[in-house]
Amino acid sequence: MSELKNDRYLRALLKQPVDKTPVWIMRQAGRYLPEYREVRAKAGDFMSLCSTPELACEVTLQPLRRFDLDASIIFSDILTIPDAMGLGLHFVSGEGPKFKKTISSAADVASLGVPDMEDDLGYVMDAIRLTRREIDGKVPLIGFSGSPWTLACYMVEGGSSRDFAKIKAMLFDTPELMHSLLSVLAKSVTAYLNAQIAAGAQALMLFDTWGGVLSGENYQHFSLAYMQQIISGLNKEHQGRRVPVTVFTKGGGQWLESMAEIGADALGLDWTTDIAAARQRVGDKVALQGNMDPCVLYAQPQRIETEVKTILEAYGRGSGHVFNLGHGIHPTINPDHVTALVEAVHKESVKYHQ
Amino acid sequence: MSELKNDRYLRALLKQPVDKTPVWIMRQAGRYLPEYREVRAKAGDFMSLCSTPELACEVTLQPLRRFDLDASIIFSDILTIPDAMGLGLHFVSGEGPKFKKTISSAADVASLGVPDMEDDLGYVMDAIRLTRREIDGKVPLIGFSGSPWTLACYMVEGGSSRDFAKIKAMLFDTPELMHSLLSVLAKSVTAYLNAQIAAGAQALMLFDTWGGVLSGENYQHFSLAYMQQIISGLNKEHQGRRVPVTVFTKGGGQWLESMAEIGADALGLDWTTDIAAARQRVGDKVALQGNMDPCVLYAQPQRIETEVKTILEAYGRGSGHVFNLGHGIHPTINPDHVTALVEAVHKESVKYHQ
Repeated sequence: MSELKNDRYLRALLKQPVDKTPVWIMRQAGRYLPEYREVRAKAGDFMSLCSTPELACEVTLQPLRRFDLDASIIFSDILTIPDAMGLGLHFVSGEGPKFKKTISSAADVASLGVPDMEDDLGYVMDAIRLTRREIDGKVPLIGFSGSPWTLACYMVEGGSSRDFAKIKAMLFDTPELMHSLLSVLAKSVTAYLNAQIAAGAQALMLFDTWGGVLSGENYQHFSLAYMQQIISGLNKEHQGRRVPVTVFTKGGGQWLESMAEIGADALGLDWTTDIAAARQRVGDKVALQGNMDPCVLYAQPQRIETEVKTILEAYGRGSGHVFNLGHGIHPTINPDHVTALVEAVHKESVKYHQ
Repeated sequence: MSELKNDRYLRALLKQPVDKTPVWIMRQAGRYLPEYREVRAKAGDFMSLCSTPELACEVTLQPLRRFDLDASIIFSDILTIPDAMGLGLHFVSGEGPKFKKTISSAADVASLGVPDMEDDLGYVMDAIRLTRREIDGKVPLIGFSGSPWTLACYMVEGGSSRDFAKIKAMLFDTPELMHSLLSVLAKSVTAYLNAQIAAGAQALMLFDTWGGVLSGENYQHFSLAYMQQIISGLNKEHQGRRVPVTVFTKGGGQWLESMAEIGADALGLDWTTDIAAARQRVGDKVALQGNMDPCVLYAQPQRIETEVKTILEAYGRGSGHVFNLGHGIHPTINPDHVTALVEAVHKESVKYHQ
């Protein structure tokens, strides 16, 4: 493997000094890029793109060719684990992910086992191995998974949901069944992320997309506890280098203090949270990632620059900040606006690290 | 007008002593009730139901016949103002509210005027007047409106939205246009709520359904500031009685301190916020409404009772708590579960008021 040429992202996660604030963008390999849409069209369906290592590698690298990003993230989906469990993940245009089989009974949960990381999910590991070779040490490669709670939401609801009625009925009426499901998912995610580390992932993200639909207390028991279990089961030292973990609960701004206690190196913030207040609340325990409203990218470059300055100033001096959006980039964004964002972060952040 | 027989709700909002914690339910007149579905079917479309005072009155009273509720809320929609402005509100099954005309340019905004409260919105005032007569002082009648920001979201997007791309592009690129739109809406909502008070509304709610999609700073400037403007323009003393105002920003749990400063008597909480922590944060400034996860009503009555106890205990001793869900009741809830909720609140709350 080539020596890592830009370790700004990894250093910021570990609160080590950096020259500028690192920046990457959630869903940076995505539909807003014409070159992505081209590969996507060639691949046919979305899952073929994820499961063909050459194509996944290609789209992972695309944004690095356009933008001066400080990290890459392996192109994949947060729902590969339930798919590997046999639930039949597919994508319906305009409706997002769907599962052919859903989970509703104790028998359904009992039928689920931890997938085999090479037999069932080897395509992800192959994509990571290939991308690490192709990326040639330019920037670190992030691996990721959905959180157990988030995976369970899709598995029980069968797809996206407005009210999460089915999974909450399970949570409130049969909490022990809910815990069994989350338990097998936590074991699977742990094995999955460890396999990604072994394959070459240099940092990890846990996407807890739906943790924010829970009450504070239920968030602790049904989402955060399982993320803590995963983090404590990770091989966070690999080949002499620490593999930092970032936890992102969308809508989790009220719970940062407890999120900072589960052993993660960094917390992702959505744009509703003030990053200055967040830094005060978590103290030195974790680094912070975020948190520009993705919709700012609809505005003109000058406005984007102003917003970047505001967020950098709010975080303030010193390391521990990874600039990002507060959620994935929208498919209709003009890529030139991303250029403006990345340049502004690098240019305007220097003074906070002197 | 008949003397008010049950003023527990009004007293709790003003933090005056009560014998039990009052309870009502957002969307208590709604699709989960078979008797509502019957009237709705007779009315034809949803707007005919809203705009026919006899029918609106009938469905407003329905939940009071079934449940021992401490307040009623006039049956209407949060989007009556933009409809009265000529945007053509209609409802598409499964997709929620839609507008025929949307707002995107300065000319569009300039064309909007404050509607006439009797000519354009008299059907709401008629429904309030009729309901006050029919309700015969049993419980207070709440009037309401959507917040300016929430109305603007629907007017610019044309309906519900996942990412609010259009209105945020307007906010970031042409903030002065955004402010013009919010300004005419704030004037309209003020006049509308004052007309509701004159017609007989005994308390008011401002539903800020979409304030939570903003960053903290933008929430202050584009939602909260306009709600403050409205509250300061209300005739809060009517016929010798105070008309308390509750502000509910879904997803606003991070901003309670600033929400408590705008002159509202109470804040509505969604279920993601811990009500014990919320009470500490707002101190004596406001009462609190909420905040059970609506999905708890999918669980069995015993589980519902447990959750009610938890929330009552979290709020603790003394007045200032109005029990409610953290969002509107879902259409598929079993009405018997609402009975269990209301009974549990009254039975279990006595000890906190002794």
